Amino acid sequence: MKNFTFYNPTRILFGKGRIADLAREIPAGARVLVTYGGGSALANGALPEVREALRGFVSIEFPGIEPNPVYETLQRAAEIARREKIDFLLAVGGGSVIDGTKFIAAAVPFAGDAWDILEKHAKITAALPFGVVLTLPATGSEMNNGAVISRATSKLAFGSPRIYPLFSILDPTKTYSLPPKQTANGVVDAFVHVIEQYLTFPVQAKVQDRFSESLLLTLIEEGPKALKDPQNYDARANIMWTATMALNGLVAMGVPTDWATHMVGHEITALHGLDHAQTLAIVLPAMLTVRREEKREKLLQYADRVWGLRDGAPDEAIDRAIECTRDFFESLGVKTRLSDYGIGSEAIPALLSQLERHKMTALGEHGAFGVEDARKTLEKAL
Amino acid sequence: MKNFTFYNPTRILFGKGRIADLAREIPAGARVLVTYGGGSALANGALPEVREALRGFVSIEFPGIEPNPVYETLQRAAEIARREKIDFLLAVGGGSVIDGTKFIAAAVPFAGDAWDILEKHAKITAALPFGVVLTLPATGSEMNNGAVISRATSKLAFGSPRIYPLFSILDPTKTYSLPPKQTANGVVDAFVHVIEQYLTFPVQAKVQDRFSESLLLTLIEEGPKALKDPQNYDARANIMWTATMALNGLVAMGVPTDWATHMVGHEITALHGLDHAQTLAIVLPAMLTVRREEKREKLLQYADRVWGLRDGAPDEAIDRAIECTRDFFESLGVKTRLSDYGIGSEAIPALLSQLERHKMTALGEHGAFGVEDARKTLEKAL
Repeated sequence: MKNFTFYNPTRILFGKGRIADLAREIPAGARVLVTYGGGSALANGALPEVREALRGFVSIEFPGIEPNPVYETLQRAAEIARREKIDFLLAVGGGSVIDGTKFIAAAVPFAGDAWDILEKHAKITAALPFGVVLTLPATGSEMNNGAVISRATSKLAFGSPRIYPLFSILDPTKTYSLPPKQTANGVVDAFVHVIEQYLTFPVQAKVQDRFSESLLLTLIEEGPKALKDPQNYDARANIMWTATMALNGLVAMGVPTDWATHMVGHEITALHGLDHAQTLAIVLPAMLTVRREEKREKLLQYADRVWGLRDGAPDEAIDRAIECTRDFFESLGVKTRLSDYGIGSEAIPALLSQLERHKMTALGEHGAFGVEDARKTLEKAL
Repeated sequence: MKNFTFYNPTRILFGKGRIADLAREIPAGARVLVTYGGGSALANGALPEVREALRGFVSIEFPGIEPNPVYETLQRAAEIARREKIDFLLAVGGGSVIDGTKFIAAAVPFAGDAWDILEKHAKITAALPFGVVLTLPATGSEMNNGAVISRATSKLAFGSPRIYPLFSILDPTKTYSLPPKQTANGVVDAFVHVIEQYLTFPVQAKVQDRFSESLLLTLIEEGPKALKDPQNYDARANIMWTATMALNGLVAMGVPTDWATHMVGHEITALHGLDHAQTLAIVLPAMLTVRREEKREKLLQYADRVWGLRDGAPDEAIDRAIECTRDFFESLGVKTRLSDYGIGSEAIPALLSQLERHKMTALGEHGAFGVEDARKTLEKAL
């Protein structure tokens, strides 16, 4: 096991009816900016409950944060926050709203051009405190200190110990009304988060490995249930808690991590507008096929412990584990080939150029995944 | 899954050589009281490294915190802390030193009689900040907000959101010199912590269940390795991280918990001076036998997932799972019968009186474990 530092101060309020506890979590007298996306925060009932809970506070609403939240939109929110002397932010939504709110939190007190936060990784020395009401389990942003922001054809990440949510409210009933596509995307996203922290090479980190397998197994069991019966509380609750645990830092402690699937996927979203989870479902099976030797030992462990593939030749177990992964995504309705989205081989050069432009040329757990490997992966994903 | 609130702000610094990072974690200019037990903190090398790391600070040492830390000793430390204007505590040791330090942290600023913290559960409105250098993985106290303190024949627990360690340093190499008995006790302690949060009744909390099973499986694999080869880094590291995760709140989220084994065990320690883990190893197998119907469904899950007992009749699987549990403790050298420690049936009435005196008469996940059940359990444990 490698050395590590773990720190995660976000308070989680989990369960039915927890939005009612909101007022106690926000500093008394705070001026609150409520950020959200579109109509789903209204439709799922979260926003009305938030408005009710915020009665004792001065609050302003900022709707319209996009999927893959856009820099310019967030800058507008930051201006409003400054002008209105906002001192607390409340994100109501999924990963995009939360990520966007993290950026607003950092941008409001930032001296200088806030673009530097993304492009130059400028150090964040202060941020507005903020809370979250989660309505879409997927990204884990509700319990971590990272965010991904889009501007034109770039998706750029930033992080800081100052942008952990102060609290996050996770009420599984608020996910009942999710469209099947978003439920499925969330399951795929959480699944691939775990894979990127697990499917590398073994370092005798037994707890982390088993925790990762716990999350994968739970998604495999509960994902289909939530799609079949959207109001199955336990399925919704298990998916919600799994997605949070999948990217709150815990399973990455002391182990190598990969993230090449994400980086290649980001470029597909940036150039072709696919959902984040769709890009992961496309890239991952191809990535595992291309890198099967590098990941051999963990692929065998994955085959055994997650898919129960214990018999037969090792290479066959690996083949079947990759196949099971693809079939799982497809069974949720998330297509796993570029061609399923009308993207052909002619798109590959531009995707590779984007990776080079963003200096994504030494990816993976060994820092050895370069543009040629990305080409092979994208070709396998056609 | 039940509703829950999760919050754990302790920063973990895990790995070889992390004591060197100590100075950065303590507020600049702090006056530090270093608390420890006996000579083991010197022998394992932790204390010399701590002294080296604390060179830039005013620091005083307070040795002599006992196993099952004693109220009067801790009050003496609190007096010294007040007199010397200490504003940071650093516990170097295992659960007893950490628990004791938590009490000192709460007692120093406490207005009134500090005994009220334990006896009357007086609210703690302030506490000195403190850090931990862990040298004995077992109790999980390094990443939680609870403590157990002894006075005469009472072992009393207290807890507060204000007594989370600010940080805990976990260097597995500092456990190389542990006597086999302490290594084994630590594994048993962590194992039973998980069991108390897992082996109750099912509530469809799939992540928590699998995380618990992850911890149990890791202890079963790694415990014997650490005893056989005390300098096996990975075994020591896995045990250390498992023991921390076993009682940092995570696996208890949203599930019923038991703790009857602990409460009965506490009385055996108080009256007969057995190690905490010895009492758990005695009580647990007997407890599971007595309560096998109440715990039936989870016992079957435990038999299957932890001990691989999938075939045969359910009752047989339960019998064998309980037997495997006992055999595991015995294989570590921790005896599992009262008679192994020279305690006979004549000791039972006094133990039951103690439980009544401490109002421990409605224990367990259903609050239904009373004095008669404790009698049956102790009789089974003879």
